[in-house]
Order: sequence, then C-alpha cells, then structure tokens
Amino acid sequence: MTAQSCALCAGDGGEVLYRDELLRVVLVDEPGYPGFVRVIANAHVREMTDLAAADRQRLLAAVFAVESAQREALAPHKINLASLGNVTPHLHWHVIPRFADDAHFPEPVWGARQREPGPARLAERRARLAALRAAIAARLAAAG
Amino acid sequence: MTAQSCALCAGDGGEVLYRDELLRVVLVDEPGYPGFVRVIANAHVREMTDLAAADRQRLLAAVFAVESAQREALAPHKINLASLGNVTPHLHWHVIPRFADDAHFPEPVWGARQREPGPARLAERRARLAALRAAIAARLAAAG
Repeated sequence: MTAQSCALCAGDGGEVLYRDELLRVVLVDEPGYPGFVRVIANAHVREMTDLAAADRQRLLAAVFAVESAQREALAPHKINLASLGNVTPHLHWHVIPRFADDAHFPEPVWGARQREPGPARLAERRARLAALRAAIAARLAAAG
Repeated sequence: MTAQSCALCAGDGGEVLYRDELLRVVLVDEPGYPGFVRVIANAHVREMTDLAAADRQRLLAAVFAVESAQREALAPHKINLASLGNVTPHLHWHVIPRFADDAHFPEPVWGARQREPGPARLAERRARLAALRAAIAARLAAAG
C-alpha cells in the first residue's frame, strides 16, 4: 500500500478532537462503542520503531492522555490499547473503553461478538461524549 | 480478579527471556505464532495510566526493544502491539510478529481464522527463535 492509496493519508479518519504537526486524535463512529478514539500519526509511517524516539514518546503521551480522559469521562471497566495496522499500515492506535456489557466483552473488539448491547446503556455512554471531548482537549492542550 | 487468582501473578506466563524488578519478557507458546512475545509488568497493575510515568516509559522501552528484535530476527510483514487485559487485568503487552500467510492475517490474531499456516513456513520461523532470543537479550541488556 502506498501513501496514495492509504485511507489515513486520504482523510482524517474520524471527528478530529486534537491535531498537531505529529499526530491527530479522532473520535470514531464505531457502532456499539461510544468513546472509541484513535491516535493517528500524520505521516505514513508503518511501525512504532520507524519513528524517532521523541516522536514515539509524544504519540504515546497522546494515547495515555486519551486513556486518562476516557477513564475520567466514561469510567470504563477496562481500556484496550492496540497498534495493529494489518489492513492500513499507517501508524494508528486504537484506544477503546470497554464495558462488561459491551458487544464483545471479554473478547477483544475484533473477536467473536458476545451479545447485543442494551440501547439504554449505549445512550448513557453517548451522553458522556461531550465530557470526553472536553477532557481530551484539556489534557492534550496541557501536554502540548 | 484479585492478585491471588491472577494467572500472571501465579506464574511467569512463558519462557522468561529477560526479567528486572519492573517487568519480564516472555516467549509464549502460541500455536502458529513462533516469536509471539509478551512484556508483562511484575506488579498486579490494571492500566498503563496506573503506572508512574517513568515505569510506563520503561515498560514501553522493553516493548520496542522486542519489536526491534523481532524485525531483525524474523523480518515480519507487520508488528501488532496490544494491551487488552479483559480476561487477565494484569498489565501485559502482546508483541506479535505477523506474516501475510499466518493463520489470521490480515485479521488480528483474536479475529476470524483465515487459513492453515504452512508447516514449512512455521518451521522456518521456529528455526529463527534462537536468533530472536539472542536479539532480545542483547537489546534489553543494552537498555537496562
């Protein structure tokens, strides 16, 4: 895959909550997972070890700022972090708040679906997205 | 889950390649995935943001030392990194060398199985495990 055909070069990949010269933080529209965020390198870089150490550290500082904001705003049961990139080999981190009653728990979100999440619980989580956006912006502004 | 019932408190979780007071690096016996490594916090800590920043950075330095060693010894198509912990909420990173012909590619290893990996290719990868062990030990000794 070249940068020309890469979805994360062609577009933002979600609702941009923060952006600087190295990275952007986007809220993604994953059905059943309100508050699912990705931290995406702006450059078409394949692996974490292809980044300079300082950039690697800044990218991860953003990942942990998001994790902290998700814990504060959503109080999830667990946070899942992953950098996979098998389909889109452009460095991006999945930062996923998990709940014991979500669609796949305790499986990873890429695993077998376990249940239909309750609409009331999902609505309750969606109602906290404004607080999540604010918490992410505050933490990244403080770090930047 | 209490530390008393935690699999990663009760045992090493694999063949220990490196250990210090904060973490251990283990080679795990995952059928079809020679070179699959986990970096495991020794303490029963739940999330990355529960660790002090310096410990978080040291744990990740070990993850990237393993990633570099896997790239050097195995030349995988992609590296997958993940900290999930839904089943075992004791901080551990999966560091997984992926190949285009492995059992799940391009799915995550937790996703739908795609094929039966060829025994010759698996044997070839297993033959490089001695080089991987040496590369991990060398990189972590240099970092430690």
